Amino acid sequence: HYDMVEGENQIGVTTGLAWTTVGGDTLQIETAVLPGSGKLSLTGQLGDVMQESAKAGVSYIRSVADQYGIEKDFYKKYDLHIHVPEGAVPKDGPSAGVTMCTAVVSALTKTPVKRDVAMTGEVTLRGKVLPVGGIKEKVLAAHRAGIKKILLPRENEPDIDEIPSAVRKEIDFVLIDDVSQALDNALVR
Amino acid sequence: HYDMVEGENQIGVTTGLAWTTVGGDTLQIETAVLPGSGKLSLTGQLGDVMQESAKAGVSYIRSVADQYGIEKDFYKKYDLHIHVPEGAVPKDGPSAGVTMCTAVVSALTKTPVKRDVAMTGEVTLRGKVLPVGGIKEKVLAAHRAGIKKILLPRENEPDIDEIPSAVRKEIDFVLIDDVSQALDNALVR
Amino acid sequence: HYDMVEGENQIGVTTGLAWTTVGGDTLQIETAVLPGSGKLSLTGQLGDVMQESAKAGVSYIRSVADQYGIEKDFYKKYDLHIHVPEGAVPKDGPSAGVTMCTAVVSALTKTPVKRDVAMTGEVTLRGKVLPVGGIKEKVLAAHRAGIKKILLPRENEPDIDEIPSAVRKEIDFVLIDDVSQALDNALVR
Amino acid sequence: HYDMVEGENQIGVTTGLAWTTVGGDTLQIETAVLPGSGKLSLTGQLGDVMQESAKAGVSYIRSVADQYGIEKDFYKKYDLHIHVPEGAVPKDGPSAGVTMCTAVVSALTKTPVKRDVAMTGEVTLRGKVLPVGGIKEKVLAAHRAGIKKILLPRENEPDIDEIPSAVRKEIDFVLIDDVSQALDNALVR
Amino acid sequence: HYDMVEGENQIGVTTGLAWTTVGGDTLQIETAVLPGSGKLSLTGQLGDVMQESAKAGVSYIRSVADQYGIEKDFYKKYDLHIHVPEGAVPKDGPSAGVTMCTAVVSALTKTPVKRDVAMTGEVTLRGKVLPVGGIKEKVLAAHRAGIKKILLPRENEPDIDEIPSAVRKEIDFVLIDDVSQALDNALVR
Amino acid sequence: HYDMVEGENQIGVTTGLAWTTVGGDTLQIETAVLPGSGKLSLTGQLGDVMQESAKAGVSYIRSVADQYGIEKDFYKKYDLHIHVPEGAVPKDGPSAGVTMCTAVVSALTKTPVKRDVAMTGEVTLRGKVLPVGGIKEKVLAAHRAGIKKILLPRENEPDIDEIPSAVRKEIDFVLIDDVSQALDNALVR
Ligand SMILES: [Ca+2]
Ligand SMILES: [Ca+2]
Ligand SMILES: [Ca+2]
Ligand SMILES: [Ca+2]
Ligand SMILES: [Ca+2]
Ligand SMILES: [Ca+2]
Ligand SMILES: [Ca+2]
Ligand SMILES: [Ca+2]
Ligand SMILES: [Ca+2]
Ligand SMILES: [Ca+2]
Ligand SMILES: [Ca+2]
Ligand SMILES: [Ca+2]
Repeated sequence: HYDMVEGENQIGVTTGLAWTTVGGDTLQIETAVLPGSGKLSLTGQLGDVMQESAKAGVSYIRSVADQYGIEKDFYKKYDLHIHVPEGAVPKDGPSAGVTMCTAVVSALTKTPVKRDVAMTGEVTLRGKVLPVGGIKEKVLAAHRAGIKKILLPRENEPDIDEIPSAVRKEIDFVLIDDVSQALDNALVR
Repeated sequence: HYDMVEGENQIGVTTGLAWTTVGGDTLQIETAVLPGSGKLSLTGQLGDVMQESAKAGVSYIRSVADQYGIEKDFYKKYDLHIHVPEGAVPKDGPSAGVTMCTAVVSALTKTPVKRDVAMTGEVTLRGKVLPVGGIKEKVLAAHRAGIKKILLPRENEPDIDEIPSAVRKEIDFVLIDDVSQALDNALVR
Repeated sequence: HYDMVEGENQIGVTTGLAWTTVGGDTLQIETAVLPGSGKLSLTGQLGDVMQESAKAGVSYIRSVADQYGIEKDFYKKYDLHIHVPEGAVPKDGPSAGVTMCTAVVSALTKTPVKRDVAMTGEVTLRGKVLPVGGIKEKVLAAHRAGIKKILLPRENEPDIDEIPSAVRKEIDFVLIDDVSQALDNALVR
Repeated sequence: HYDMVEGENQIGVTTGLAWTTVGGDTLQIETAVLPGSGKLSLTGQLGDVMQESAKAGVSYIRSVADQYGIEKDFYKKYDLHIHVPEGAVPKDGPSAGVTMCTAVVSALTKTPVKRDVAMTGEVTLRGKVLPVGGIKEKVLAAHRAGIKKILLPRENEPDIDEIPSAVRKEIDFVLIDDVSQALDNALVR
Repeated sequence: HYDMVEGENQIGVTTGLAWTTVGGDTLQIETAVLPGSGKLSLTGQLGDVMQESAKAGVSYIRSVADQYGIEKDFYKKYDLHIHVPEGAVPKDGPSAGVTMCTAVVSALTKTPVKRDVAMTGEVTLRGKVLPVGGIKEKVLAAHRAGIKKILLPRENEPDIDEIPSAVRKEIDFVLIDDVSQALDNALVR
Repeated sequence: HYDMVEGENQIGVTTGLAWTTVGGDTLQIETAVLPGSGKLSLTGQLGDVMQESAKAGVSYIRSVADQYGIEKDFYKKYDLHIHVPEGAVPKDGPSAGVTMCTAVVSALTKTPVKRDVAMTGEVTLRGKVLPVGGIKEKVLAAHRAGIKKILLPRENEPDIDEIPSAVRKEIDFVLIDDVSQALDNALVR
């Protein structure tokens, strides 16, 4: 079965794009903000690179918290839990970095994420978005799931040419350089 | 020997369904709430995916604690222990997620679980229930153990057709989308 | 050499029964209660299943501490150490669960354990006693060691028939359903 | 694609040089200083040697903090996160030691790093800079990326002769003995 | 070269006996009591069984601290470090249990250990001394090292017959049942 | 290239001697004392035996801190970091024990180490110096590096005979029994 876009805009949930040997897939990134003491939980069979990607993303958000209207000391008062269903499927790689950042900011600011937006891109500690692989397969999977707008790293612009024009016409592509542009496009505000 | 349903409704104990290469089986999920400081213990030879499943479930419950009438800061004042007998049998997979959530809410709210209800389903950090495998084998095992009502993920509806009609007639199937529906059907209240 | 029953009733020490490929054996479970802060130490080359068994048993005792006349917050004021000599012999499996529970309650309540009682059985987080394997070999070893009374899980009743009648006549078998029955039969009070 | 030098001088970001079997490469070292309690996070698939290198560098900076105008107890009040994109590429070796030290001092003193300076060299606990391998390949990669000045360990001076003169003419080489010389050459002050 | 007995009675140092495929050997157990907070350090390439043996021994001493004139809360105020030179030689097994207990009591009570006494024996959590292997080889090594008195587990009494009478005549054997007898024979008081 | 002795006496830095299959080598042991809370960091690709050796040495120094004029509670107020460049070269074995002890005492007492002294020897928890291997190769490497005085374990005295007389004449050998003798010979005071 194919995942379809959520019925409504949600807080703390974003749509990412995965790329495996058998094609592309969409995946949901879920984030919970819990009263706590700064622990970061990462579940959903995430590999080392994906866990480090989450850690770099969270540190980026901590470093610019006030810029995004987040309580400066949120890290001391809350635990963050990032989960990626389906829990039995191993996931890895850095390409969900920008997706995880967006989910975390959504959860911390209680701002909903637009239900028909998906994104992919490695994120650095400064919030820069780096290019990733599998763009064609990812876009096809997003299209199949009902996604209307896809945020891609600017350096992946050439990969858009390889997407069948029938699909390309139905998707609004936005090239992004950093996390703030992802937030501008994905958050409802 | 086959496990049979408990003689009475119990607090903190739910009936899950497992699926192995040699068929289905029922399993008890036991939860203890102990005065403590927020530690989560997971025992019973649970694999990585099953442990992550428990962690996601507990975070979900923490995130909506007040909705379920649970003390908001229970996580600071109690330790939770989730155990799955039989301790020498390795268990894994995400399909006990909803069963563990129900056991934890039962224990925290001191509400008994109906003794003749079983359930299966992956749970996400938002409390959504995702489809799982082995429905036919699991239902047969539950039936054999004397279970009268089985809660299944809505997306597993098509799997009900594969169950022999003799069994199907004796079981009340409830399709659920999220944890709150599991609680509505399984808790005595 | 064969282990023989202790010369006198002791506090914090119980006799368990092990089953290996070369036959049954008795083993001593030793428990020390130390001024501390809630740490649980497990030594004696105990495998993962046996360690989880101890943890489930200790959580059970914590959950019903007042029922057994144990200080409610003992877990904060004491460290528990469970040791199984002979330290170079690897041990595993869940069957010492009830034996460890009894040793811990004996130590915490300073109540001696009857020297000529042995027991075997998996214990669940609710204190239920589940059936285990190797009953015949275990009983023969206990008999050889001078044990007079053996506590067995009720579901193991059929296994008693396989024990040579000469031995069966000299042993008092007690079938138990839960830990409280083990305590009733093993503690001097 | 090749990495190109940043468009502007940045705080907490330095350009290092890597050497693999398929040639040299530039890499960015990113550092974030976060309100915290002295934790050091290292991400970007860094091997053991590279992680130890970072730890030695941070201890060196702690030991001479006042010399560099850094708050003496910064280590208690902040967490440090050092990240090296691209997160899926394993990196190892001690040669980024001086580059990480420079990024950390830049971040702690909020002093920008000159955008067209790159560097390589193992750093010791006393801040001495030791020679490293792959100088020729590293310099070629830096040149290609638009770097104008390269800091090299003094003991690597002989390696400069092996660089094609066309490249050598366009790069300003600085031989350094210790971290303070790297800071003098790389920080904007 | 062979180890020889120390020139004078020392505090916190005992002589143990090891048994390898190439014969017996003496080994020194060193204990340091350091102002601290209850940490136990074990060094000298000690295997798992030997480390557990040390932990059981230390718990025994904590459980009877007042009996031996040791401050009841020493465990909170001091760190214990047990080291067994020669650090590059792997050691394992439970037979140094009584030797480690004696070294720890000596260090905690600042009582010297008699320089010409050696001992071997597993120790249980109650301070019982259990039999061990390699008695003949161990005694020969002790004799060669100038030891005059050897403490052996009572159950090892039959092994004394296998020792050449020339050696047997020069050694004073003491059979012990528990740690207190080891202390009576080894400590200078 | 060969390492040469430092240009001046330094604090917290000692010269050790290593022995590999391809000959001897000198190595620098660097120690930093940092405001902290008693953490011990060990870097430079140190194997298990070498790390345990450092831990035993630090415990020895803690146990006799006042004897060496070190603040008694230094362990609570400072972190210690011991680093051995060159960070990519794996090192192991107990023979740097006395070298690490000397570096630590130098750093804690802010006393310089004589630049032309090298040493080798396992150290015990009591500060005794035990014999080590590879003396001939180590001495040749030290001589080549410009070392004038070498401290050796007394039990290694016979190994001096194997050193070519041309080298032997240019080195001042000091046989030591314990760490205090190493300090007497290596520290500037
Ligand atoms: Ca799916
Ligand atoms: Ca999917
Ligand atoms: Ca069963
Ligand atoms: Ca079952
Ligand atoms: Ca035995
Ligand atoms: Ca036995
Ligand atoms: Ca690149
Ligand atoms: Ca690059
Ligand atoms: Ca020796
Ligand atoms: Ca020896
Ligand atoms: Ca070198
Ligand atoms: Ca060297």
